[in-house]
Amino acid sequence: MSGSSGTIPVAIVGAGGFTGCELAWILAGHPVFETVALFGSGGGDGVRAIADVEPRLRGVVDLNIEAASVGEILASGARVVFLATPHGVSAELAGPLVNAGVTVVDLSGAFRLRDGALHAAHYGFARDAALVDEAVYGLPERTRGTLAGASLVACAGCYVTAASIPLGVLAEAGAFRAGTRPIVDAVSGVSGAGRGASMNLGAVSARPYGVGSHRHAPEIEMNVGPVVFQPQLGAYDRGILGTMHVELSPEWEGADVGAAFGRAFAGEPFVRVMPEGVWPSVAGVRGTNFIDVAWHVDEERAHAVVFAAIDNLVKGASGQAVQCANIAVGIDETAGLLPGGVRTAAGVGA
Amino acid sequence: MSGSSGTIPVAIVGAGGFTGCELAWILAGHPVFETVALFGSGGGDGVRAIADVEPRLRGVVDLNIEAASVGEILASGARVVFLATPHGVSAELAGPLVNAGVTVVDLSGAFRLRDGALHAAHYGFARDAALVDEAVYGLPERTRGTLAGASLVACAGCYVTAASIPLGVLAEAGAFRAGTRPIVDAVSGVSGAGRGASMNLGAVSARPYGVGSHRHAPEIEMNVGPVVFQPQLGAYDRGILGTMHVELSPEWEGADVGAAFGRAFAGEPFVRVMPEGVWPSVAGVRGTNFIDVAWHVDEERAHAVVFAAIDNLVKGASGQAVQCANIAVGIDETAGLLPGGVRTAAGVGA
Amino acid sequence: MSGSSGTIPVAIVGAGGFTGCELAWILAGHPVFETVALFGSGGGDGVRAIADVEPRLRGVVDLNIEAASVGEILASGARVVFLATPHGVSAELAGPLVNAGVTVVDLSGAFRLRDGALHAAHYGFARDAALVDEAVYGLPERTRGTLAGASLVACAGCYVTAASIPLGVLAEAGAFRAGTRPIVDAVSGVSGAGRGASMNLGAVSARPYGVGSHRHAPEIEMNVGPVVFQPQLGAYDRGILGTMHVELSPEWEGADVGAAFGRAFAGEPFVRVMPEGVWPSVAGVRGTNFIDVAWHVDEERAHAVVFAAIDNLVKGASGQAVQCANIAVGIDETAGLLPGGVRTAAGVGA
Amino acid sequence: MSGSSGTIPVAIVGAGGFTGCELAWILAGHPVFETVALFGSGGGDGVRAIADVEPRLRGVVDLNIEAASVGEILASGARVVFLATPHGVSAELAGPLVNAGVTVVDLSGAFRLRDGALHAAHYGFARDAALVDEAVYGLPERTRGTLAGASLVACAGCYVTAASIPLGVLAEAGAFRAGTRPIVDAVSGVSGAGRGASMNLGAVSARPYGVGSHRHAPEIEMNVGPVVFQPQLGAYDRGILGTMHVELSPEWEGADVGAAFGRAFAGEPFVRVMPEGVWPSVAGVRGTNFIDVAWHVDEERAHAVVFAAIDNLVKGASGQAVQCANIAVGIDETAGLLPGGVRTAAGVGA
Repeated sequence: MSGSSGTIPVAIVGAGGFTGCELAWILAGHPVFETVALFGSGGGDGVRAIADVEPRLRGVVDLNIEAASVGEILASGARVVFLATPHGVSAELAGPLVNAGVTVVDLSGAFRLRDGALHAAHYGFARDAALVDEAVYGLPERTRGTLAGASLVACAGCYVTAASIPLGVLAEAGAFRAGTRPIVDAVSGVSGAGRGASMNLGAVSARPYGVGSHRHAPEIEMNVGPVVFQPQLGAYDRGILGTMHVELSPEWEGADVGAAFGRAFAGEPFVRVMPEGVWPSVAGVRGTNFIDVAWHVDEERAHAVVFAAIDNLVKGASGQAVQCANIAVGIDETAGLLPGGVRTAAGVGA
Repeated sequence: MSGSSGTIPVAIVGAGGFTGCELAWILAGHPVFETVALFGSGGGDGVRAIADVEPRLRGVVDLNIEAASVGEILASGARVVFLATPHGVSAELAGPLVNAGVTVVDLSGAFRLRDGALHAAHYGFARDAALVDEAVYGLPERTRGTLAGASLVACAGCYVTAASIPLGVLAEAGAFRAGTRPIVDAVSGVSGAGRGASMNLGAVSARPYGVGSHRHAPEIEMNVGPVVFQPQLGAYDRGILGTMHVELSPEWEGADVGAAFGRAFAGEPFVRVMPEGVWPSVAGVRGTNFIDVAWHVDEERAHAVVFAAIDNLVKGASGQAVQCANIAVGIDETAGLLPGGVRTAAGVGA
Repeated sequence: MSGSSGTIPVAIVGAGGFTGCELAWILAGHPVFETVALFGSGGGDGVRAIADVEPRLRGVVDLNIEAASVGEILASGARVVFLATPHGVSAELAGPLVNAGVTVVDLSGAFRLRDGALHAAHYGFARDAALVDEAVYGLPERTRGTLAGASLVACAGCYVTAASIPLGVLAEAGAFRAGTRPIVDAVSGVSGAGRGASMNLGAVSARPYGVGSHRHAPEIEMNVGPVVFQPQLGAYDRGILGTMHVELSPEWEGADVGAAFGRAFAGEPFVRVMPEGVWPSVAGVRGTNFIDVAWHVDEERAHAVVFAAIDNLVKGASGQAVQCANIAVGIDETAGLLPGGVRTAAGVGA
Repeated sequence: MSGSSGTIPVAIVGAGGFTGCELAWILAGHPVFETVALFGSGGGDGVRAIADVEPRLRGVVDLNIEAASVGEILASGARVVFLATPHGVSAELAGPLVNAGVTVVDLSGAFRLRDGALHAAHYGFARDAALVDEAVYGLPERTRGTLAGASLVACAGCYVTAASIPLGVLAEAGAFRAGTRPIVDAVSGVSGAGRGASMNLGAVSARPYGVGSHRHAPEIEMNVGPVVFQPQLGAYDRGILGTMHVELSPEWEGADVGAAFGRAFAGEPFVRVMPEGVWPSVAGVRGTNFIDVAWHVDEERAHAVVFAAIDNLVKGASGQAVQCANIAVGIDETAGLLPGGVRTAAGVGA
């Protein structure tokens, strides 16, 4: 599946947004994927250099962001196409690209929710049912087995990733006490709102939002069953810290929580289990594809608090998309995603 | 009770800390209290101008911070003494000052917990039982009736204030479903750690702390019954945002929550109930003595999420201390604490 | 000049912007001015509560922001009108309001530059010459004598204030070496760009702007003669720190700098000269009307570096406007502007 | 010079500080250097995992920080030793390590200043003269030719790097008007103060420091001749933005500035010249080894303002150290320092 020089040509659609630029940055250091074209989100903007949108990319990615169309995307020769586009744009582009044989990795919410009615209620549009069936949910720590060879990957949402990796383990293991729902309180940096969201000073402050209505609630529930989910904006630029409360099943003892996580996360390249007494922080995962997980059990009250930290733009979006793409095309899952990935990945093209 | 010129002389002990400096700032604009002396926390530091500690105070409070002793404090002529001191220092100073007839307003945790064993377990020292009996808990929205004429006020903790004002209302009204505990997740700016806490860059990041062990947990439980409390450090300087989850009693409908808050907060000068669809933020209360409260009920699940925002250094500490002192000495509760307090308070001395 | 109850009714036009909201906040604590009406900037927005724009004002200023027109403004009964409006809007409103006998305090750049050609080049519109003649420049530390009884005050710009208060003293005293121009490098918090400016994350970063073209350059030069002025955006919300370099005249010794400042600033209520070895900071002036000034002379090189810090929304805008208004109507210059202003100002109405 | 597996073993001394941790992070992705040992700064701290100091490194660099001694460092087998140590510690360690044949790359100020008296005045200790002679100044854009094969590299200071790369070009080309000194105003994130510096809230604010006395002043002057240098702390974590003012020589026209920079920076892998109308920002270089440079000439006044932005922990410290080490040992100068360095560097070991 590799190109002539041992690389695989890829394209980014929606390259001007936060996640599109982060993808361009990550892919610049990827040993196999080579970015051959960048496209906008179809909003009619003129062609411009990506470095004029995101200064960090100057001299690193010297490509223009072109107007997006299925024809132009296919003409670029990309074998993998990342859609860092609004939900509706992803819904329109995915079908034709998949049909043309391209591997599509979608960062939007267009194909995340399996249930059509739930999707329509939260996103406001219907989807092609066959395409929904073809889509594989992109959260490798939970769905790795289904990602190899996928033609369309629907990457998990940012908050969803932080919540579902640990809570999915506990749900599967039967940790939740019957009749209770885990509580998921999570704080995100303001980049979670996207570059389009204009931020006035009042907005950059700790405050809740999406109260009782956030789109990530049904997605978390699809993964782990009923929860209460409450997102909050933090007064910083990037990163998510999730605080999750679980009422434990009567059969569970405190040590069972650690045992369940230990089994599930052994060998996971991007899950870091914190040592005793160390708690995850947004600073600790900044610019990385790691999810840091820790927990504490109050034995007397049969209550567990679980913490997870991710960089919302990396493990919560662009890094996870690359991780899914790596698996989909059959190369090292960590390629391009670890500081030490250079040497690790050296044998990839061999 | 007022001084010769219609003012009441006050002193601040522990004036060099964050809450001590905030007190000095607030009192500089108070129509009745006049700061006549500043003292340190007994750590042996030399005399220095408070403006050299907190530059904002230069030209506003031109007093030196003197070495603290009961004799010196009494010699200052202060009729009200604010103790912005470590728990142990407050425990030592409070008795002699109260016995000398001074009104003592303590911002520390020395006299908050009524239960001696619980106090000893969390603070590591025992207290004079008679003094504990004399102490009145300082959370005016819950304990106003007992504050008038108090000789020793134990002001509520910062997180405790954010949690207990709304949850106290619901607890009293019987809103909690039997067998459930409210969840209190709260984020605080780094000033909550005090000036003494050196902050390295890694520390200024969203991260949990005090997991399973924070001293404010038993204090919240003293006020509202059993809860799960989890504090978190936010990546900003000041302010607390509390997110609280309540499983509602079967008899409760959604509107009952609003009705309970409406009854409790009508006429409260420092509780601002947000209009429908507006959520509290840390920016909205910065530098004020307000607590902003909002809630959302998921009727189907009989679950309420309640939000409260305060400035941890004002309503969570120094502002609340002044509010308590105002009540204790019998002047307008809002004196010195509202932007418009100037005119409102005009009649105070009359 | 006071109203029936000893207060003076005032109105704010452009109340929804950062400086308009800051004005509303300051005036809520003013002992004489009473805000009777708020108006928008004519942009066609509907009526809304100011607390919905700036949450800090909820419960403090319970007024709606109405559509602005000369008729409505005059109908409010305001005797002083603050124009926190775009330059062009101020230019249109000022004339009719002044002619109707109202005291107009303009925070925009509409009437700052005396020179018509320079104004037109920088602001893109012409002004009524008679009105320009009537306008008094509002920088009390430099123009106090002309402000009493003024009908139209053109408040100095934010950077201009930070630069002109210290450099004006040195210029007047002849400190600049012939043939040299002071360098003014200044950093401002992002609120300097106004609420209308949408801030994406990339924008909230230390970076220069207005290179070779900022409107405040000619205004500083109007006050102190030729300079080089370079503004910079800092990664914080409010405050300006100016760093100014002066090549000293051969007749000047180091001590002459301190002597000049000492003479000029003695008795100035809002200028704080830092003690030896203490340097101004943005944190030190936050939320205050102070300008903190310090300097260092390299005797060998006959070079002085001068620092000044202000809160751009207070001394750089709304606080200075109130200071000018106080002088214009003949009340205590510090009314409403000092933490301790409560007591100090008590005799004002007497 | 490479190790058995084609890699070169390296060690970091002072690994627990900001620059030491940044080195560990960069080296984790380096295609040739392999970190084999970490050491402290000799302060007597016990052995601890570097991930316990810098959470970002967990799972990336799984090494303990050991007590430093010449013997232990040599026993590690490292062929290149990075000294991210206090000045005095570097001065003690460098000699024995150099004598043992190790390539020493020093990030401290111990060997930067050639002049012994100047060094002693600013750093307070004397150095071995032979070692000073052996030291090569590490600022590749200015001293590349002397770095190949160096046994001891004295990496340039952070502010010095931001100032000397552009001003060095202009100084060499004779751009400065006789009798004038360039002004260098520069803002640094608080990480510039090191991890050891405890930061209270007041400290994290825009404010000048090192007035008239900063150690980087003589170092900049060593590189470009007499300047005025004034550093300032910005309210953010990392990055330096320099604003430099140059009075141009009468023979110089505006275009000459661009021509000089164009000649000097053509082919420089880490210097990015901004396009017309684009200005450097701290966000644009965050986490990179780039220096972004731009300028504006006021022809009429023969004045140029020059801007430069770097990440103080990368191009200003650890990235530059790796760049110097790459040159010193004869591998690709960009190895490990570019996002796309993976593929570029692939041929290095061949």
